[in-house]
Amino acid sequence: MKIGLAQLNYMIGDFKGNVAKMKAAIEKGIEGNADLMLFSELSVCGYPPRDFLEFKHFIRQCEHAVQELAGVAGSKIAVVVGAPSPNPTKDGKDLYNSAYFIADGKVVFTAHKALLPTYDVFDEYRYFEPNKEFNLITYKGKKIAITICEDIWDTGEENPLYRINPVAELAKLQPDILLNLSASPFHYGQAKKRMEVVQRNATTFHLPVFYCNGVGAQTELIFDGGSMVSDAMGNVVDEFPYFEEAVRFYNYTDRESAITCCQPAAIQDKEPVRLIHDALVCGIRDYFHKLGFKKAVLGLSGGVDSALVLALAVQALGKDNVLSVLMPSQFSTAHSVDDSLKMLQNLGSPHKIIPIKDIFEVYDHILQPHFEGKPFDVTEENLQARIRGNLVMAFSNKFGYILLNTTNKSEAAVGYGTLYGDMCGGLAVLADVYKTQIYEVCRYINRNGEIIPENILTKAPSAELRPDQKDSDSLPDYAILDRVLYQYIEKHAGPDELEQMGFEAPLVTRILRMVNRNEFKRHQTPPILRVSPKAFGSGRRLPIVGKYLE
Amino acid sequence: MKIGLAQLNYMIGDFKGNVAKMKAAIEKGIEGNADLMLFSELSVCGYPPRDFLEFKHFIRQCEHAVQELAGVAGSKIAVVVGAPSPNPTKDGKDLYNSAYFIADGKVVFTAHKALLPTYDVFDEYRYFEPNKEFNLITYKGKKIAITICEDIWDTGEENPLYRINPVAELAKLQPDILLNLSASPFHYGQAKKRMEVVQRNATTFHLPVFYCNGVGAQTELIFDGGSMVSDAMGNVVDEFPYFEEAVRFYNYTDRESAITCCQPAAIQDKEPVRLIHDALVCGIRDYFHKLGFKKAVLGLSGGVDSALVLALAVQALGKDNVLSVLMPSQFSTAHSVDDSLKMLQNLGSPHKIIPIKDIFEVYDHILQPHFEGKPFDVTEENLQARIRGNLVMAFSNKFGYILLNTTNKSEAAVGYGTLYGDMCGGLAVLADVYKTQIYEVCRYINRNGEIIPENILTKAPSAELRPDQKDSDSLPDYAILDRVLYQYIEKHAGPDELEQMGFEAPLVTRILRMVNRNEFKRHQTPPILRVSPKAFGSGRRLPIVGKYLE
Repeated sequence: MKIGLAQLNYMIGDFKGNVAKMKAAIEKGIEGNADLMLFSELSVCGYPPRDFLEFKHFIRQCEHAVQELAGVAGSKIAVVVGAPSPNPTKDGKDLYNSAYFIADGKVVFTAHKALLPTYDVFDEYRYFEPNKEFNLITYKGKKIAITICEDIWDTGEENPLYRINPVAELAKLQPDILLNLSASPFHYGQAKKRMEVVQRNATTFHLPVFYCNGVGAQTELIFDGGSMVSDAMGNVVDEFPYFEEAVRFYNYTDRESAITCCQPAAIQDKEPVRLIHDALVCGIRDYFHKLGFKKAVLGLSGGVDSALVLALAVQALGKDNVLSVLMPSQFSTAHSVDDSLKMLQNLGSPHKIIPIKDIFEVYDHILQPHFEGKPFDVTEENLQARIRGNLVMAFSNKFGYILLNTTNKSEAAVGYGTLYGDMCGGLAVLADVYKTQIYEVCRYINRNGEIIPENILTKAPSAELRPDQKDSDSLPDYAILDRVLYQYIEKHAGPDELEQMGFEAPLVTRILRMVNRNEFKRHQTPPILRVSPKAFGSGRRLPIVGKYLE
Repeated sequence: MKIGLAQLNYMIGDFKGNVAKMKAAIEKGIEGNADLMLFSELSVCGYPPRDFLEFKHFIRQCEHAVQELAGVAGSKIAVVVGAPSPNPTKDGKDLYNSAYFIADGKVVFTAHKALLPTYDVFDEYRYFEPNKEFNLITYKGKKIAITICEDIWDTGEENPLYRINPVAELAKLQPDILLNLSASPFHYGQAKKRMEVVQRNATTFHLPVFYCNGVGAQTELIFDGGSMVSDAMGNVVDEFPYFEEAVRFYNYTDRESAITCCQPAAIQDKEPVRLIHDALVCGIRDYFHKLGFKKAVLGLSGGVDSALVLALAVQALGKDNVLSVLMPSQFSTAHSVDDSLKMLQNLGSPHKIIPIKDIFEVYDHILQPHFEGKPFDVTEENLQARIRGNLVMAFSNKFGYILLNTTNKSEAAVGYGTLYGDMCGGLAVLADVYKTQIYEVCRYINRNGEIIPENILTKAPSAELRPDQKDSDSLPDYAILDRVLYQYIEKHAGPDELEQMGFEAPLVTRILRMVNRNEFKRHQTPPILRVSPKAFGSGRRLPIVGKYLE
């Protein structure tokens, strides 16, 4: 049996575009005499469709798309596609998250997802009823078990999130192969974990696994692909490239035989810094392309964060498509502009220089009479950031560019940024990358020669909103701050646990208070490209008004 | 048996404050010789605690709070409080959403929530395992069934969201009374529906129902209270006041006898416009008080939206605690300032007037050379809005006031507003109130005499960002727009259904496209006070990048 896997980059709700892509893959399968073509989870509508699933009209479009694909496949090939399907009983949620098995031009079988991830960025029980009945489909003499994403993720965990294991249920029916349709988003440790999960399923149940993931960014969620095939002994025969589309084919005989790859096989490099870099480039690229935009604008401050955003944006969009605006104030150091210009020269990318002093002075002149003699404080610092926000947004509006936000995760965590100032933007490129990781990605970018000038990487971080300001005036050292933040945000360590780890109690109290009190700022942050297991945004939902650890 | 219900306004994560409130209620119960004191869902930690539930430290604080309350109750009174409890088995989610029955100073029984709302603003399956076992607790000879919020909401629906009905399960065990601990948030139709649900449970199972709800605003969610007691025939004996705390007591003998109220009984007025008004005032009041802020600032434009926000804020915070900033431009009409001043005089509330022309001209002068001769467009319109945003934020920063956002739901829906301009603010007071409803609430405010000047209520809406601009230049008439928006947003009507309702296809296409394309703006909106069954914010989750109906 020749099986094809199509790892495609879908657009949510773009039924026409998605069907066209899937049709091309099916035709490739027919051309190559494949017996079966496997797509990823909710492929016809794109993942995650979110509350579009609550629209009957949207569900009807999904059904039409499945029918259209059945027509394309005809009697020439079997196709397995992901789409929502109506729950035929009146009890429970109205939909299942399903895989449609299409043979001879019609839907001959549906399998429904049993384990519905409802944690972090996932909301599947919001929409779907969990499957409770398990069946196989027999095709060309092979008994096929079909699972969807999370269904294979509950093996061997000490503290499982669910009460059943769907693969164990299916294994009782003695299938020949296991298919999995996934939409499993990227974080820097996911590719390694995913491969282990596939291998564990293969060896535990002595089953070859054909795992097909989606690829490409859907706003904040980045799908890295990495579809793969494992034989029943847990040997990974082939792993798809990350962050790009691919259609690949495999020959399968039986459980005991080797699976052969119809093209040169590969296993991908899983080095986290490289993955984060590639994910961010993919995230920028797809955000722009899917929205139909070509050009970006950003404020280039001379600091490391905006330098990294510029470098990534140039890779994603091309050097001519990123406009850097340098907006020095009376508090800016000379190297801020010089370092930025050096980097722009390295890249050959365009820029504008617009000093903000004159604008600031008019505001100051107009506001002073109302400020009752109160001294320069955070008000005036924020005002500078907001003037810059206005200027870059003016370029965005006038020329139809998207403003890239340059906030990093450490700043986003402790609220070290100005709402409506440097927190503006269509997309927050780095807000899931801690300051200490920012430097690592920069070094990776410079691996074959200087793109980001060395001085940007070695000088002390500063917002330059008052004379001689340094980040370290108001924040703990990033090396310590980031470790506490990681334990609190990614690992859910409480104050008692942090103290047991050796962090001093006043420091812990101070940092946790900053994080919790600044939820109001993060609520108004642009969407954040997610590269860690716990990003700010839809995967981390905290009250804005509360008193826990404040 | 004398039963007390405590409808209290909790602070999320403020264990000390919550326990103090609950302690006072328990002492009141002891003083009045009550046998049992009932609190609301997740009362010890406040509802919704969201991802704080993922912190073991937070769960331990909840457990300590329960123990402390057990100590207060001692042998003098039984107490039923809401708190998370650990799932003792390794399978499934780690927590239950529970009610602790405390008697003789210790926890003698726990009941877990079976139906976990995971739709709209609710994410309960994110945290909790659903209960599958049903038991009663016998206390002073009475068999008591304990349910939590949603558990009683699955009676008599044609298309139930769940596969079981917990009250039917409990009814098989022949309880004498049914208790319900709720945290059921307000929308303008909820109080009526809630009473019907309580009555339907009472009559279906011939059971007296003691229903205790939380009260007060938790950022965007407003809890109206309305706790109530129904006898087994479905007669509502008493309904608590909305939007305020109360502790009330009842005498219960048996299923067949009347329940008597220890104080004058009441049934509350459920007129939607009044409820919306009172909910918004409660929402503002609690947002400020719980954050520890006293004063608000807003931009007063002369239009109806900011006029309404001012009137509501003055009611919530007091006339001296709301600073209005009037920021006319060269495009502002004379009546904008005059009407605003008249309203401020009606209220006796302070203001500042700061024309923005000089600031705008500096920006314009600095930007022109970079704009390649392109004409005045939305860039310059947005710039005016952003200058105003900067000015009011400067007052916010300098004096520690919170900026109130004045966006209405119609604007928020179609993206008729400027990010980082009029979309700034700590709290979006009106973004769940359609423009046509805004006028109704204004008329309600003027019911006893003019507060909002008549001219504000009768002139054509305008953003005044270019000469002679009217909202109707770029938007359909609000009367039509709001009807389409309501069907699309609240009712999930698709384009085909809207056309069947008689709306013209091009109009439907245009409006739905505007709504879907402007998700990126709503993503950066301040938290929105929820007064409808479907508000923008956490209850409506749509992709930012997609192509459905675009």
